[in-house]
Parts: sequence; C-alpha cells; structure tokens
Amino acid sequence: MRNNLPALLDVLRVQFADRVLSSNAAREQHGSGESHLPAAWPDAVVMAHTTQEVSDVLRACTKHHVPVIPFGAGSSLEGQIHAPHGGISIDMSAMDKVISVHDADMDCTVQCGVTRQALNEHLRATGLFFPVDLGAHASLGGMAATRASGTTTVRYGSMRDLVLGLTVVMPDGEIIRTGSRARKSSAGYDLTRLFVGSEGTLGIITELSLRLFGIPEATQTAMCSFNSIEDATETVVMALQCGLALNRIELADTLQMQATNRYSHTALPECPTIWVEMTGSPATVENDMATFEGLAETARQIDRATTADDATRIWRVRHDALYAARALRPGIKGISTDVCVPISQLPACVSAIQEVIATTSIQAPLVGHVGDGNFHLVLLYDPESETEVREARHINSSLVEMAIEMGGTCTGEHGVGLGKKPYLQAEHGPALGVMARIKKAIDPDNIMNPGKIFDL
Amino acid sequence: MRNNLPALLDVLRVQFADRVLSSNAAREQHGSGESHLPAAWPDAVVMAHTTQEVSDVLRACTKHHVPVIPFGAGSSLEGQIHAPHGGISIDMSAMDKVISVHDADMDCTVQCGVTRQALNEHLRATGLFFPVDLGAHASLGGMAATRASGTTTVRYGSMRDLVLGLTVVMPDGEIIRTGSRARKSSAGYDLTRLFVGSEGTLGIITELSLRLFGIPEATQTAMCSFNSIEDATETVVMALQCGLALNRIELADTLQMQATNRYSHTALPECPTIWVEMTGSPATVENDMATFEGLAETARQIDRATTADDATRIWRVRHDALYAARALRPGIKGISTDVCVPISQLPACVSAIQEVIATTSIQAPLVGHVGDGNFHLVLLYDPESETEVREARHINSSLVEMAIEMGGTCTGEHGVGLGKKPYLQAEHGPALGVMARIKKAIDPDNIMNPGKIFDL
Repeated sequence: MRNNLPALLDVLRVQFADRVLSSNAAREQHGSGESHLPAAWPDAVVMAHTTQEVSDVLRACTKHHVPVIPFGAGSSLEGQIHAPHGGISIDMSAMDKVISVHDADMDCTVQCGVTRQALNEHLRATGLFFPVDLGAHASLGGMAATRASGTTTVRYGSMRDLVLGLTVVMPDGEIIRTGSRARKSSAGYDLTRLFVGSEGTLGIITELSLRLFGIPEATQTAMCSFNSIEDATETVVMALQCGLALNRIELADTLQMQATNRYSHTALPECPTIWVEMTGSPATVENDMATFEGLAETARQIDRATTADDATRIWRVRHDALYAARALRPGIKGISTDVCVPISQLPACVSAIQEVIATTSIQAPLVGHVGDGNFHLVLLYDPESETEVREARHINSSLVEMAIEMGGTCTGEHGVGLGKKPYLQAEHGPALGVMARIKKAIDPDNIMNPGKIFDL
Repeated sequence: MRNNLPALLDVLRVQFADRVLSSNAAREQHGSGESHLPAAWPDAVVMAHTTQEVSDVLRACTKHHVPVIPFGAGSSLEGQIHAPHGGISIDMSAMDKVISVHDADMDCTVQCGVTRQALNEHLRATGLFFPVDLGAHASLGGMAATRASGTTTVRYGSMRDLVLGLTVVMPDGEIIRTGSRARKSSAGYDLTRLFVGSEGTLGIITELSLRLFGIPEATQTAMCSFNSIEDATETVVMALQCGLALNRIELADTLQMQATNRYSHTALPECPTIWVEMTGSPATVENDMATFEGLAETARQIDRATTADDATRIWRVRHDALYAARALRPGIKGISTDVCVPISQLPACVSAIQEVIATTSIQAPLVGHVGDGNFHLVLLYDPESETEVREARHINSSLVEMAIEMGGTCTGEHGVGLGKKPYLQAEHGPALGVMARIKKAIDPDNIMNPGKIFDL
C-alpha cells in the first residue's frame, strides 16, 4: 500500500505545493494529539482549504490506495488522529469560516475547522449560542466526528442531537450533503447521524449545519456537598424527574475534592460534590433552584452563588478539575477515560471501580456529567513504570467491563479511536458486524482512517 | 420470486398454524392502511408474538426470496405497509408488552406493538410519560420505523431523539441490539438512528428502549388569532428565541378555521390562528405565558384558558381539525401530506402553495407544528374525478418542490413509503446513492419492504 506513497506525494505536491508537509515536526504534531497512546505518525500532512480540495485529496488517495486520516484541532483522546497504517493526514484547521447564520431559524452553517469557542465569539451579537461545551479547544468537525458532548448535554443534547446536516466527502471524492435546514425530516435514512460519531472512517465532514439557542436571561449556580455518591445521585434523579431547568449538573468524588483543595488553596468539604446551574427566566431559575434546595435533603452543605463573581468562583473549581487532578502527581499526564451508565447504576459503578483502584498503586480522581450518567477517571500513572502501566490498563478495562455489564457504554463522549476498540465486541455483539458491513459498503478499500473503531 | 410462495407458506404453517392468514379480508386489512394510495395486498399475513418468531419468518423468507412487510398498527399515511411486490406481512400488534420501566433512569423498554397511548396508560402511576404524540393510534415500533413526531416535538424532540436503543431482526434472521440504556455514547456507528426512519427496509424493530419524562406540574394554554401567517410566525420565532417553556405551538390557516367553525358550531375568528401550551412549574408557566402575550403584539385576539375545562375546549378545536377539514366535503377522505421547512421560510411556502391551490378546484386546509416549520395540507379531492386527481397530485408535487427549494424536506413526519419516493433524488442528490449502498449491504436480496423509500 505504502509503495504508492511517492507517486501520490508527487500528485499532491503539484496541486498543494508547500501545503504538503512531510517534516518530522509536522508528522509528529499530526500523529499524537492529546491521547495517552504512543504516537503513530502519518507519512505526510496536507493543509486543505476547501471541500473541493478535500475531495481532490481523497480521490488521489483512493487511486493510490493510501490511507487518509482527518485532523481537526488534534484534541482527541483515544487516538482518533493517529496513523497506525501511515498515510495522509488532512489538516482542516484552516477551514475556519462561519458560512451563514440564520437568526430566525436559530441555525448556522460552518466549515469543519471552526472551533466551538470561535463560533460563539462570532454569534455574540445575535443573542444566540451553540451549547455543546467540552474541556478541549476542539473543532466542530471533530466534535461531530466523535459525537462529542459536555456539561450542557443534560439540557441541550450532544452533537448527535444538534447537527442538522453535513457536507461530507466520500472516499472516492464524491461530495454529498446530508440532511437539510429543516428541524426534522422523515425522508430516508439518517445519514447525518451515521456520519456523526463515525470518526472519519466513512467520509470526511467538511461543513456542518448546527442548531443554535437563545442565551438564557438568567442563571443560578450552587455547589452541594454530600456524604456519599448515592446521596448525590438520588438528589440528581429527583431534580431530573421534576424537570427542573438544569443547564449543568456535575459531580466530583472525594479524591478530586482533595486534589482541588490542594491545587486551589481552598477549604471545600472533601466529600462527593455536585455543581448545579439553572438557566431560564429569572422567575424560573429562582423557583427551580429553591425547589432543588428542597430536594437536596441529604446535602451536608449547599453553597449558592449570590453574585456573578460567586458563580464564577464556584465554576472555576470545576473547570480546574483536570489540572488539580494532574497536580496530585506533577509531571504525570495520565489517561482520561470515560464511560456512561444508566444513572441508577452510577453509584454502584463508581464504588465498584473505586474498589478496583484501591487494589493498585494508582490515584484516579473522578469527575462526571452526572445528569447523563457519564463520568471520567484520570488515571495518574507513570508510563515508565511497567507495574503502573499494567495497573492503569487493568483499571480502564475493569471500568469498561462494569459499565457494559450495567447496561452502559465503553465511552460516553471520548469516542473509540484506538483506545476503546477492544471493547466494542462486548458492547455491541452482532451489531458490530452490521457496522462493519456498512464500513465495507462505503469504504471498500478501507482507506478512511483505517484501524479506528474496528479492524476489518 | 413469488413462485417460492407456496413452499414458504407450507413452512410457515408448520410453525405458525392458524397465525398464518391468507383470507382476502386479512390481506386487504394489511395492504391498505390509512393511505390515500391504492391498496397493494400481501400474499399472506403472519401474526408474530416474539422476536424469535420474527427472526424465524425472516429466515424463511430470505431462504425463499419472498418479500417481508412489517405491520404495526396500520396507521401509516404514505403506503409504508403496502405490498407492491406481494410477500408476507408480519403483523406485530400482538407484541404489546411493556417489558420494563426504570423510574430513576426515566426510561422503559417495550415491544414494538405497544401503542403510545397504551404506554402512557401503563406509566400513569409513575409520574412519567412518553411525549411523542401524533394524530394516529400508532404502534411505537411503527413510530420509530417512520421517524414519527408530533405536537410536542418542539419541546421533547421526535422518535429520532427519544429512542435509546432497539432490538432489530436483520433480513437473514440475525437478532441485534443497537444502543444501550446509557443516555449517550460515542461507541461506534449510530445504528439506532439508522434503523429509526428506515421504514422496515433494513430490518424489523421488535423492541425499543425509550426516554421518559416527568409529567410537568403546571400547564397554561392560549389560542391567538393573527391577520397573517407572517405575523403568527414572527411571534413564534420570538418565543423560540426567548426559550419560553413551549410544550406545543400549533398553527391553522383561515380555511381550516372556517372549517372548524362549521364543524364545531363555534364563532372563532376566521384568520391564521396559533395554539400555545406552556408547561413547567407554576412560576415558569405563569411567567412565560405573560412573556408570550407581550411578544404577540400583532395578535388580533388572545384567548387564554383560565380553567382546565377552558384549556380542553381550546385544544378540542385543534384535535378535531382533521375531522373539520374532511367535513368541508363529506364523503371525501383526501390526502394528508406534510413538508417541513426552516421556520423563516414557512410564510413564503404557505403563501406560494396557496397560490397554486387557488388555480385548482381543490380545497386544502392547513394545520402545522409551526415551532418545527412542519405543516400538513389535507387535499380534499374526489378520487373518481380525473381532473381532481391531477390537481391534487399537482398541488402535492408543487408543495414538495417548494419545500426542497427553500432548504426543507419532502416529509417532516409522515415518511416516504411509496408516496414521497419520487422526490428523494431532488432532496438528497448523491446522498441517495449512499443510502442505496447501505440498503444493498444490509439487505442484498431486497426482501425487506421492497419498493419503499427507493427502487433499486
């Protein structure tokens, strides 16, 4: 396959000239990302500027049987941008135009390289915003490709729910448009949802039409400490059943709160903690936060923000959680892994994995989007220590097995990439074979991000 | 293909005995439904009781190369249950068990034949409900298969959004499970969303896990009359941008209101009218309805319900809209067609189609889920009159062409079946070819509901 590479590079250099990069620096940058996995460099990088250029690269790569790996902002966590079979990384970070914003329809169309931060900056004057927020400085194309979500998913849904339509370049270079700007449709197969979460294995997303929302008028924030994850979860379940105007509801465990106090020089209760944000009209948030406080009978302490500065202080603690976690062991980056379970199973899942962690030498603070049953562990291990590597892998695989056993999924929002691939058979059973048939029908030569999601 | 039918029927009769029906009455019932299209009978009907039985039927049909048409409640409007190539209709109305309800997780798992009404009856004691509501007495399996939605989609989403996972029988009889009970997942291709809306052309849905919601504490209802569709739509756009607690927001045009006054002996203003329902806490609905009344500056009249009976009276007018429409021309059933456009295009789309209607002899009252940009026309034509048939078809195709031209879709919620098939190429372009490749990969012998969505 890679024997065709020199001929392909000749073709690409004619069209793209110095936008074909083959320096070690460029290859390294495009073959490692934020993942804990060992780097796997592409053979070269092409900086694409238009959908037509992406089409041209794919047509050439198909002709030469060379793999293609789409690259957005490089923030993926499970090796989605790695090039284990070499090939061409297509960098789409320069495709960063907001193409159109339709205020009345509350939607917009953007190029894939626009980041969520850049989009919200662009929207500032409209009173509208795009709600999916995650920890990373990610591109919207990459967020769609990995079916990303975040703290506001409990209110607005994930990329699955908020993409109206896509422009996608198929492996043979054909450009298709999925969906429309209509809010709903029953006209044929839902190709939009098929490409969302397909991690570049079926085609490359170059444009997205996205739903937007009005910025709520008012916000109320509180932080609540509980004696146990069970107590915290039960309160969250009641809040969800009552349909309170929750915008965010986030969880941290005792170890994470210890890490936070050390990192932020705070004296917060070192016990399971949730952050709550209500948004809506002033009447709604006032009413619903009061209802929440009434429901939170088992809370040890509720700290409700009375000023905007106060709310910022409360949320900064949550935003800094990953830095605080890593500071438990300076110089160690760790694995950030995630699973998602039915919320009723969350306390059992957390307590079972904490028992596993206790049999190892690894520290693993926990944070989570508790309203969705989704949580993350940061496994702080030294990649130079064989024992710790083995222990970290054991924790990760135990966590995934428990989550699947409890009716959940091996990843709520980070995606499969290379890291979660070993678990898909256990999670999906024969449905994985159906996914593979779709992959083979759409990408028969397996040039689209090969080795991701499954091995064929 | 149908030469194999006698041998297949012999096999099925051994297993299913008198649950194989081949009387004309059974075939007629299963080959016409609620559609305006001429009936197309299956050769026989099998009454299935379990997923395994559905698997057995599919395995036998694949072996004998005989088509299979899934049948839920027979309420589809575009010929989805018709058997234009003959074959076996699998009737799943007896698969009507609610398998499990998880209060804390706010989800349930049901067999495909459970109707939405039966599910909500079953849930009564839990304080939870399933929100997708449509005009028909439909099965949840059929609603998933056609990607149904309804009046509350503006708040809760459609079947696309509310199905967590499915049990599906594949053409060769293999039983797969898509999704899990986790609220979100990034673990591989979204097969759930692929089967939702596939109208039985890829496999048969036998079980569904569905999201549930808490019944809101309070409700406020109002009916507002406007001078024009533009004024009504502008008010709706503002309400959406403000994020008001809209549960339903429905539109009727002048002709529909005239039909209503005649049918219901009311004296409502005969002009474009919207129904608004707010749900949430008492504080929220009071606040948000007041906000809405402030936004509706252009309303000629606002009739806000002050009692529950009052609200029932207001909604009865909307619920009876179809009967009122048909009563304009007694004995005539008409075509109920639907399209969906970006809401900003709705006034232009309505006024353009009304101009087309004015050039014909057809009456076509309009109702719509205006918050989604989705509307329905009931085309009251006499199927015995060649002129009226031609005019009705002309209106329907003009409507679809306009909707696609305006960035919308040929069907917001009724599905493709046989009726909307001619428009998919115009709507999807080359993406339709990708759908066909998926169909061929999953159902290579084209036995699953052949002739629906596309001809291969």
